Amino acid sequence: MELMPYLEKTADTVDKYLHRHFGDVAGELNHASAHLLVAGGKRLRPAVVMLAADSVKKGASPDILPAAVALELTHTFTLIHDDIMDGDSLRRGVPTVHAKWDEPTAILAGDVLYAKAFEYICMALAGERAKVMAVTMLARACAEICEGQHMDMSFEKRDDVTEGEYLTMVGKKTGALYAAAAGIGGLLAGATMEQVEALYRYGMNTGIAFQIQDDLIDLLASPEKSGKDRASDLREGKQTLLMIRARETGLDLSGYRRELEDAEIDEAIAKLEKAEVISGVKKTAMELVETGKKHLSLLPVSPERELLAQISDFFVTRGH
Amino acid sequence: MELMPYLEKTADTVDKYLHRHFGDVAGELNHASAHLLVAGGKRLRPAVVMLAADSVKKGASPDILPAAVALELTHTFTLIHDDIMDGDSLRRGVPTVHAKWDEPTAILAGDVLYAKAFEYICMALAGERAKVMAVTMLARACAEICEGQHMDMSFEKRDDVTEGEYLTMVGKKTGALYAAAAGIGGLLAGATMEQVEALYRYGMNTGIAFQIQDDLIDLLASPEKSGKDRASDLREGKQTLLMIRARETGLDLSGYRRELEDAEIDEAIAKLEKAEVISGVKKTAMELVETGKKHLSLLPVSPERELLAQISDFFVTRGH
Repeated sequence: MELMPYLEKTADTVDKYLHRHFGDVAGELNHASAHLLVAGGKRLRPAVVMLAADSVKKGASPDILPAAVALELTHTFTLIHDDIMDGDSLRRGVPTVHAKWDEPTAILAGDVLYAKAFEYICMALAGERAKVMAVTMLARACAEICEGQHMDMSFEKRDDVTEGEYLTMVGKKTGALYAAAAGIGGLLAGATMEQVEALYRYGMNTGIAFQIQDDLIDLLASPEKSGKDRASDLREGKQTLLMIRARETGLDLSGYRRELEDAEIDEAIAKLEKAEVISGVKKTAMELVETGKKHLSLLPVSPERELLAQISDFFVTRGH
Repeated sequence: MELMPYLEKTADTVDKYLHRHFGDVAGELNHASAHLLVAGGKRLRPAVVMLAADSVKKGASPDILPAAVALELTHTFTLIHDDIMDGDSLRRGVPTVHAKWDEPTAILAGDVLYAKAFEYICMALAGERAKVMAVTMLARACAEICEGQHMDMSFEKRDDVTEGEYLTMVGKKTGALYAAAAGIGGLLAGATMEQVEALYRYGMNTGIAFQIQDDLIDLLASPEKSGKDRASDLREGKQTLLMIRARETGLDLSGYRRELEDAEIDEAIAKLEKAEVISGVKKTAMELVETGKKHLSLLPVSPERELLAQISDFFVTRGH
C-alpha cells in the first residue's frame, strides 16, 4: 500500500473512533476536552502505533486501536496545555480551548484527556504485562514532554542555546511521544525487548526530525499551507536549529526580531540559504531519519515496516 | 494498633519514600513538582490504600507501597492545578507552586506528578492484570476529579445549588480519589470483584463525609488549627452543604458575604446552630461514614479492617 492512502485510511479510522467516543458527550467540560480532538489533525502518532504493531505481528492493529487513540489523546492534552502557556488563540483552524472557554476549563480539559489516554491504553486487547509496560512507557513520555516544554520556555529568555540543548529539548518535547508511539505499538503486539527498544529509537530519531521539519516549514511555507503565521520563529527570535546554526556561522538575524514584510522574510531566507544553513539543517533532519530507519532492521520485512520507513521520509519532506 | 500511631507510622513511611524519590531531584521543573509533595500532609490516601490491601491480604502493603504513593502524587497534582484555578497563594504552610514559580511551571509541575502517578501504580509488586485494573480505576477517578472541580467552579456563579448537586460534586471531587484509594489497595492485594466494589463504596462514602467535615472545619476551626482563613466559605458565599441547608431552612446568610470580624463569624455560627443546620450536617457526615463502614463487612475481620473503620470515624471527628 502507498503511504498517503494508508495515512488517509488510518486517520479515517481514528476520526470515526474519536467521534464515537468524544463526538457527542454531555457537559461543558467534556465539550472542551473534545473540541480540538475532533477538529481534525493528521493522526500521525496513531498511525505509527498501528504500523509498529502490524510490523511486529501481522494484523495486530485492530486489537490495539484504543492504544493508538491514546497517543492522539496524549498529543491533544499537551496541545491544550501548551496553548495556555504560549498564549496561542488559534489551533487546527479553530479557537484554542482557553480562548473559547477559559484557562481553568482548559487546564481541566487537558487533564481529562490525560486520564483518558491511560484508560484507553488499558482498553487495548493485548497481554496484561504488555499493557502495564505500555502504561509505564506512556507515563515516562508524558513526564519528558513536560520537561521539553519547560526547556523550550526557558530558551525564550536566552540567545545562547546550543545545538545539543536544542536536540535534547526536541527529543523530549516531540521525540518522546513518537518514540512511545512506536514502542507501545510494538509492546502491545508482543515484540521482543530488542524490537521495542529499536522501535523506540526509530520513533525518537524520526520525531526529532519531524520537529526540525516543523521549524523549516515555519520559515519556508506559506501561511495558507502551514495554517500558521509565516516565519513566527524568526520574528520571535526563537532558538530553533536554523537560528542556532545561523548564529554559529556568524549570521546575525537579530534585526528580524520584529514585525516583518514578506520581502524581508525572503531576504532572511536568502541569507540563510547563502550561508548553507537551510541545506545543512535539512541534511541533519535527513540523517536523523536514516538513523531511525536503521533500527527497523530488527523487525521482519513487511509492507508495514516499509510504511514505517516511508512515514519517516514523509516527516522531513512534507510541506505542512 | 491504635489509629493515630498507625497513621503516623504510615505517613513516616510515605514521607521517607517521597524524600528518596523526589527530595533531591535535578532541574527547576522537578523542584516545582516536588515542592508541595515534600511539604508534608497527612498522607491519608496512601494509608487507605495500604489498609485496604492489608485487609484483603495480611502483609500485602509493603509490596504495593509505590501504588499508595501514587495516590498521594495524584492528590498533589490536583492541588497544584486547583491552586492555579482558585488563585490560592498558600498551601500546607508554603507558597503554592504557581505563586513560587509561575503558572506555566505549575501546569507542567502538576502534569509531571500526574504521569508519575501512573508510573508508580505500575511499580507495585502485584499481578499484571490487577495493575491494569488499578490504572483504569485511577484514570477514571482523575477524570471524575476534573469534573468535580469544574462543577465546583460553576457553583460559584450560582446561589441555587441543590443538596443533590453538592453531593454529586463532592463525590467526584473528593469521594472518587478515596474510592480509588481503597479500591486500588484491594485490587493489588488480590481482592475479589465484590470486595473491590465494597472497598470502592467504602471510600466514596467516607470521602464525601471527609469533604463535609472540611466544610465544617472551615467554619468552626481556628485558623491556627486549620491552616486556612477562618470561614472563607461564608465570606465567599460558597455553596457548601452548610450553606445549602441554611438556605433551605430559610436562614439568609448573604449578609456575611464580605470581610468579617471574629464576632460576626461567631454570630453566624450561632444562627446555624440555632437552626440545627450544624448538627444536621454533622449527622449527614456520620451517616455517610456508617454507610461506608457497612461495606467493610465483605472483608474478613482483621486489625486492618478495624483501622479502616476507625479512619472513617476520624474523618468526621478531626478538628483540622
